[in-house]
Amino acid sequence: MEKKTINDLAIFSGPRLFDSLRSIGQLTAPPVEAYLEILRTVYEARNLTNDGALVRRLEANLCDYHGVQNCIALANAGLGLTMLAQVFAGGRAGEVIMPAFSFRGLPHFVRWAGQIPRFCDVDETTHGLDPASVAAVISDRTTSILAVANFNSPGCIDELSELGDRHGIPVFLDSVYGLGCTYKGVMLGGYGRAEVYSLHATKLLNGFEGGYVTTNDDNLAEVLRWQRNFTFPGWRPETLEAGCHVLGTNAKLNELHAGMALLSLERLQQTIERNKSRYKVYQEIFNGLEGLTLLSCGDETGEQRNYEMVIVELGAGWPLDREQTLSLLRAEGCAIGPYYSPALHRSEHCPPGCGDLALPVAESLSNRYLQMPVGEQMSTGDINALGGLLRFARRHGEAISARLKTAGRAA
Amino acid sequence: MEKKTINDLAIFSGPRLFDSLRSIGQLTAPPVEAYLEILRTVYEARNLTNDGALVRRLEANLCDYHGVQNCIALANAGLGLTMLAQVFAGGRAGEVIMPAFSFRGLPHFVRWAGQIPRFCDVDETTHGLDPASVAAVISDRTTSILAVANFNSPGCIDELSELGDRHGIPVFLDSVYGLGCTYKGVMLGGYGRAEVYSLHATKLLNGFEGGYVTTNDDNLAEVLRWQRNFTFPGWRPETLEAGCHVLGTNAKLNELHAGMALLSLERLQQTIERNKSRYKVYQEIFNGLEGLTLLSCGDETGEQRNYEMVIVELGAGWPLDREQTLSLLRAEGCAIGPYYSPALHRSEHCPPGCGDLALPVAESLSNRYLQMPVGEQMSTGDINALGGLLRFARRHGEAISARLKTAGRAA
Repeated sequence: MEKKTINDLAIFSGPRLFDSLRSIGQLTAPPVEAYLEILRTVYEARNLTNDGALVRRLEANLCDYHGVQNCIALANAGLGLTMLAQVFAGGRAGEVIMPAFSFRGLPHFVRWAGQIPRFCDVDETTHGLDPASVAAVISDRTTSILAVANFNSPGCIDELSELGDRHGIPVFLDSVYGLGCTYKGVMLGGYGRAEVYSLHATKLLNGFEGGYVTTNDDNLAEVLRWQRNFTFPGWRPETLEAGCHVLGTNAKLNELHAGMALLSLERLQQTIERNKSRYKVYQEIFNGLEGLTLLSCGDETGEQRNYEMVIVELGAGWPLDREQTLSLLRAEGCAIGPYYSPALHRSEHCPPGCGDLALPVAESLSNRYLQMPVGEQMSTGDINALGGLLRFARRHGEAISARLKTAGRAA
Repeated sequence: MEKKTINDLAIFSGPRLFDSLRSIGQLTAPPVEAYLEILRTVYEARNLTNDGALVRRLEANLCDYHGVQNCIALANAGLGLTMLAQVFAGGRAGEVIMPAFSFRGLPHFVRWAGQIPRFCDVDETTHGLDPASVAAVISDRTTSILAVANFNSPGCIDELSELGDRHGIPVFLDSVYGLGCTYKGVMLGGYGRAEVYSLHATKLLNGFEGGYVTTNDDNLAEVLRWQRNFTFPGWRPETLEAGCHVLGTNAKLNELHAGMALLSLERLQQTIERNKSRYKVYQEIFNGLEGLTLLSCGDETGEQRNYEMVIVELGAGWPLDREQTLSLLRAEGCAIGPYYSPALHRSEHCPPGCGDLALPVAESLSNRYLQMPVGEQMSTGDINALGGLLRFARRHGEAISARLKTAGRAA
C-alpha cells in the first residue's frame, strides 16, 4: 500500500508494505515433484549417507561446472574451511590470515582447527584481502591465508597466490559468494590451493544444507575425502606420509542434499538470470534516488557475476542514519541487516588478544552499507514497491528522523 | 545354499551365502510415502534449515522420550561431542578422559575442541570407563570426562558422576549405543551434564544423518543452541558471562532430517522389538555352538536394552582365528568387523604422546570379539543360514584354517 503520510509507515504503526518477510536469501527450489522422485530412488537404494551415487554425481557435475579436477562434497561450508585450516597447519598452533571485513563465522571456523585469526585490512574496491596488509603480517606463525570472494569481486587472487608461494604458505578461498563468477575470464573453482562453496538453502545453489571444496591438488583432495569420513583407515590416501596431523571428522554430505543440489545445479544459470533481472530493477531505482548508491556487482568489467546480493551505500544526501533506515525497513517486512558489520576485529567474534588493530578500510566499509532484500521471494513488483517506499522516506526524512528520536527518548 | 564341502565356501570361490551385503547397521526406514508427504510440507513452508517446525517438534518429542528437560538437535553426533568438550574446557587446552575401548572417532572429536584424549582402562563387565582407572589420572589438566554407554551396559554412571562432582569436572556421555536403554530403571537421557545421541541412517533412530544432545542443565542447553548457530548475537544466552570461550559452528539439523527422525521415533519401540526377535535367534544359535559365545546385552538384569548389536567372543574351542573368521564371513557377504579393535591407544587414531600406556582390560577386550550382521537387512532366515555356516566352519575348522594358511603363503 502506498504511504501518504508518515503515519502510514509500519514503524509508526501503519500497515506493513510486505505481509510476509522479504529476506537476503536466495531461497530458490526446483519443483517439488522432481525432488520427491529423486528421494524415492535414494530411499529404495538404502545407500543414504556414505559416498552415495548422488554425491558422486554431484561432485562430477561440479567439477565440470567449475572446470576443476576435484570436488569434495561436505556437510557444510564451515566444516570445509575448518578442515582446510587444520590440514594446512600441519599440527602447528598458528595464525590464519583473513579479512576483517567478512562473515562473522570465519574466526570461529579457524579456531576449531587450533588456529587464531590474524585480521587484515581489505582493498577499497574488491573488499577482499589487501595484499599489502597481508604482506605486512606474514610471519613464522602464519599457517595459511584465507581469502574471501565477495559479491563484487573475487579479490586480488594473483597477488595473494604469489605472496603465498613466495613464503610457502597455502592460500585458500572462501568462494561462497563467488559461485558462477569469473576471475580474469576463468570460472572460479581452481584458484589457490582450494576453494570452499556453500549449498545452504539461502545460497545461490540450494542443497538445503551442505558445502563443497574444489581443488586441482589431487593429494589434498584425497586427504579431505579421508578426513570427512573420520579418517577411517580404509580411506587413508596411499600417498600420505606416516605421522601426519590430519584430524578426522564427520563431514559427509548425504544423498538427500546431493539430490537437491543436483537439481539446483541444472537450474543455476536460470537462477542467475532471474537475479540479474532483479538487480537491473534495483539499478534503475537507485539511479534516481539521491543519498543511496547501489554498489556495482562488477559486471561492467566483463567478468561473470551472480547478482546474488544487492548492497547500497548510505551517503551524505540520505536523511536517516543506518540504524534508523534498518528499523524503518524491518518494520515494513524486510528481514535485512547491515553488511559485514561490525568489522570482525571490533566484534564479539574476535578472540581475546586479536582485536587491537587499526584496519581503516575494513572499519570504514563496515559502517557504510546496507543489504537489500533479494532472491525468489522478491518480485519485480516488490522491488518497485520498495523503491517507492525509499523515495517516500527520502522526501520525509527529516520528519521521520525527528519522530524516531522522540520515540527513542520516550522509550 | 548349504555348504557340502569346504570348496563350497565363498572364500574358496564357492557361491556366496548372501547375494547382497548384510551389515552391522540398523538401516530401518519408515514407509517412503509418509516421508515424502512430510517433505512436501517442508518444501512448501520454505523454512528448511534454521530451527524449523519439525526440528522443534523432534526436540520436544525426544525430551518426552528421554524424560529430560532439553534436547538440542544437531547435524551429527560427533559435532555434539566436540561442542561439549569445547564448552567444558572453558578456553583451556587440556585433557578429556575417555575409554580406550571405544569408537575410533572419539579422540578426533575432542582434538577439534583443542583437547587431547587421556585414555583410560575399562571395566571388564560394562566395557565402559573403569572409575578406578579414571580416578588415577584426574589432574589439573583434565577438562572433562567422556563416558561411553555400550550395547551391554550404560557403564558406571553413578561412580563416574560422583568422581566428577568431587573434582569439579564435567562428566558427559556418548550414549549413541544406549538409546532406549535404562540405568537403574531410568531411561538414559538425563545423566551426567549431557548425553549425545546419533540419528545416522545406520543407527537405531534414523534421521538419515544427524544427532542430538540431551541435558537437564538449562544454561548448557542455551549455550549449545547458540553455539550450533555460529554464536550469532541474536541467539546469545542472556545468562552468559562476558568473555566466555564458546566457539561457534554450523551444527544445525535441518527439516529433511528432523522429519525422518520424527517418523522413526514413532516406530522406535517396534524397531527394538524386531531387534529383540533377531537377538533371540542368535542366542539359540550360539547356545549350541562350541567356541563362539554370544555376549549378553544385559537384559537379564531387568534393565531395558535395544538389542542393536550382536557381539560374539571367540574362545579356545573355535578352530579359526579372528582374521580367518572375518575373511570367511566377509566372503559370504557379511559386511562385518572386529569390535572396537585395536584399542584406541594402540591405534592410528592415537595422537603422538598419548599411547604409551598399559590398559590391560581394553587391550584384552579389543582382541576377543566379532560383530555379527544385524538390523533390517538380516531376516530370521538369514540368521539361521549364518548359524548353519558357522556350524559348518566349526566342523571343518582345521581343514579351512590349513587351506587359508597355504593360500596366504602362496600369495
